[in-house]
Amino acid sequence: MLTNKTQTTNKYGKRVPSLTLARLGQYLHFLDSIDGSGAFNISSKAIGEALDIKPTQVRKDLSFFGEFGQKSKGYDIFDLKKVLMEILGLNQTYKAAIIGVGNLGSALLNFKSLTQYGFKIVAVFDNDKHKIGMVHYGHKIYDISSFKDIVADNSIDIGIITTPGAAAQTVADLMCESTIRGIINFTTKKIKVPSFIRLQEVDLTLEFFAISHHLNLK
Amino acid sequence: MLTNKTQTTNKYGKRVPSLTLARLGQYLHFLDSIDGSGAFNISSKAIGEALDIKPTQVRKDLSFFGEFGQKSKGYDIFDLKKVLMEILGLNQTYKAAIIGVGNLGSALLNFKSLTQYGFKIVAVFDNDKHKIGMVHYGHKIYDISSFKDIVADNSIDIGIITTPGAAAQTVADLMCESTIRGIINFTTKKIKVPSFIRLQEVDLTLEFFAISHHLNLK
Repeated sequence: MLTNKTQTTNKYGKRVPSLTLARLGQYLHFLDSIDGSGAFNISSKAIGEALDIKPTQVRKDLSFFGEFGQKSKGYDIFDLKKVLMEILGLNQTYKAAIIGVGNLGSALLNFKSLTQYGFKIVAVFDNDKHKIGMVHYGHKIYDISSFKDIVADNSIDIGIITTPGAAAQTVADLMCESTIRGIINFTTKKIKVPSFIRLQEVDLTLEFFAISHHLNLK
Repeated sequence: MLTNKTQTTNKYGKRVPSLTLARLGQYLHFLDSIDGSGAFNISSKAIGEALDIKPTQVRKDLSFFGEFGQKSKGYDIFDLKKVLMEILGLNQTYKAAIIGVGNLGSALLNFKSLTQYGFKIVAVFDNDKHKIGMVHYGHKIYDISSFKDIVADNSIDIGIITTPGAAAQTVADLMCESTIRGIINFTTKKIKVPSFIRLQEVDLTLEFFAISHHLNLK
């Protein structure tokens, strides 16, 4: 977890701890989901109830970035969204590459939320001779051997690993030698990257363990 | 987050807070990944280094379930795995159903970790007339209209929602009226379920927000 607060160029440029960050993302999602409802203001209570988060927690999270809510009126939705977008670094677009065009890679190619929030998948790679050259959901599948050139030509920021676990570290090493500065690893194999790379490891099995733990208690 | 500790029938029957639970899952994964390495014992330091978690945190997490590590020798890997499996409720199998056979549903159908840890996908549903009746990765795709009967006949425990977001709440309602007691929602739409249902909401966009936040700070 990151608790280190460093000075940066961002107006709200504080390094936000991971758990707070996850809640800020949920607040933004929620505000986007009520878009078009006609509401201009929202209370911490309403946000908290929708997301099953305590209103005091909502207020605490948001006060971290200054006082922009008003006691009687709640938060101005437009302003709050703007601030959340800025904190989450969503006031710009990011270019991403997917390595591994199986079912999960394909799911991410079609994941509309990513486009909505400015994550553009600009290149897709595989090492399967049967897939290379095919156009898949509008994306030509490139040979992994051309990875470095294509990533450099497109100044790609984010690498998404959806290969089998056995290939994860090799792919990550390739990414770390490129312009990529953020990696999301969807395999169950843990990978090691240099400290200048931001790594998110997504282990879907853990979601199932949370369920089995609770079902077993009953 | 769950912090409520209730008395249960499980030997290690404490309700474990979500974050601890996620780390316990990681410990188990790691121990399974070094299976066959010939090691019988492991230190909290080695576990911590592999997973980028402080050794003091590892010891704290594991001491919650009694003293089974020895200062000089570390943890007996076999014993530790057994305890972790028990805490995580993995000493039994679970039957799961997937609703929504798109790319993400297909990815989960092929996710070997689930079978390895005792999560058996026994039924797969969709509402697309073109998919119903097809055999997909060894699973016949059933019409969603037969959901209640098939879930009851098979005593299914866990429901996995991989439909478009717009259908998520309807599908969840259907699940809550069945034998299902745990739901994993992979859509970006939040759902509401009764308190006797254990719900995990997986929002993959948040993983991307964590990356963009950090890239934006640099």
